Amino acid sequence: MSANRDIEALIDMMARLPGLGPRSARRAVLHLIRKRALLMTPLADLMQQVAATARECLNCGNIGTGDICEICASDKRANGMICVVEDVADLWAMERSGVFKGRYHVLGGTLSALDQIGPDQLRIPRLVDRVDSENVTEVILALNATVDGQTTAHYIADQLEGRVTLTSLAQGVPIGGELDYLDDGTITAALNARRKV
Amino acid sequence: MSANRDIEALIDMMARLPGLGPRSARRAVLHLIRKRALLMTPLADLMQQVAATARECLNCGNIGTGDICEICASDKRANGMICVVEDVADLWAMERSGVFKGRYHVLGGTLSALDQIGPDQLRIPRLVDRVDSENVTEVILALNATVDGQTTAHYIADQLEGRVTLTSLAQGVPIGGELDYLDDGTITAALNARRKV
Ligand SMILES: [Zn+2]
Ligand SMILES: [Zn+2]
Repeated sequence: MSANRDIEALIDMMARLPGLGPRSARRAVLHLIRKRALLMTPLADLMQQVAATARECLNCGNIGTGDICEICASDKRANGMICVVEDVADLWAMERSGVFKGRYHVLGGTLSALDQIGPDQLRIPRLVDRVDSENVTEVILALNATVDGQTTAHYIADQLEGRVTLTSLAQGVPIGGELDYLDDGTITAALNARRKV
Repeated sequence: MSANRDIEALIDMMARLPGLGPRSARRAVLHLIRKRALLMTPLADLMQQVAATARECLNCGNIGTGDICEICASDKRANGMICVVEDVADLWAMERSGVFKGRYHVLGGTLSALDQIGPDQLRIPRLVDRVDSENVTEVILALNATVDGQTTAHYIADQLEGRVTLTSLAQGVPIGGELDYLDDGTITAALNARRKV
């Protein structure tokens, strides 16, 4: 190999990121080397900075820079509503839509017998505590429409039964979605939830 | 946005890498934050290290850590043969095959009237110098089978005409390639270069 050892090690590490394989890691590293002053050095600095400061919110599991995240600490967010998501990427997706103004609870995964992930690994007891301590009236279960996601939603619903209003995101045809490209489950769900026009 | 500004800036920077869009950049950054001790900090350290040391070889354009790269400096590589490639990724691909034992010359792109890239931007004069000063007998033009790649190959062939043996990589069906999946140009090239079995 002509690249020196540091460059090879850098390619190997980049290839471990989700979405990057060996080939795209090589292309990314070459791009970084070509732009070392403008991109590589600032990127490395920022990574050091985030690695030193990022942590999970003790209340909700969101990622921030303090013990309590910006959303939990904000007095501009509505109290009484908690949106439950599987991970921080889902929270970010909800925030990009800008439609939800309440608080979040990040489970950090889904229940899985196979992977031995039980309620304690998922901050579910903490969610139950919050429902009481934060005077929550509605919990929105925004879990993925997968088997594990729905199993987890049912488990949480059982835990909170009678203590709070439980809702979930509507299922149906995505805006701009063409029926031809949708899977059967989505079409079935959209038909079952049909409404008058 | 719930992520703090450093995290957002990190996602924006990662999204500028080839092969990563906003979505995969978000997933990569979340992965890094989850593995900050094991992956993010070492990755940032290594980036700093490579940013500080990597540079282009003054002789051939390969990337290394000195003025002259390991391949140019090696006494284990054959003299007299230069393999001309468009960029360092192509050099790495040739080295992975392990089949070529000579020297390289990295053009850094292809001639392009549209992008105003002429011979001087591509280290072509330097290649002509090397053919004389390094007693080169064969130049292998390992350029991509694109219009710009082949235009560049022809230009270099004109410059070196009569001074050296000029060859190019054979074109044909890739090993394991199924005809059904190949483009017409490849099939045409493979048919034209057919040989007796
Ligand atoms: Zn929080
Ligand atoms: Zn070199």
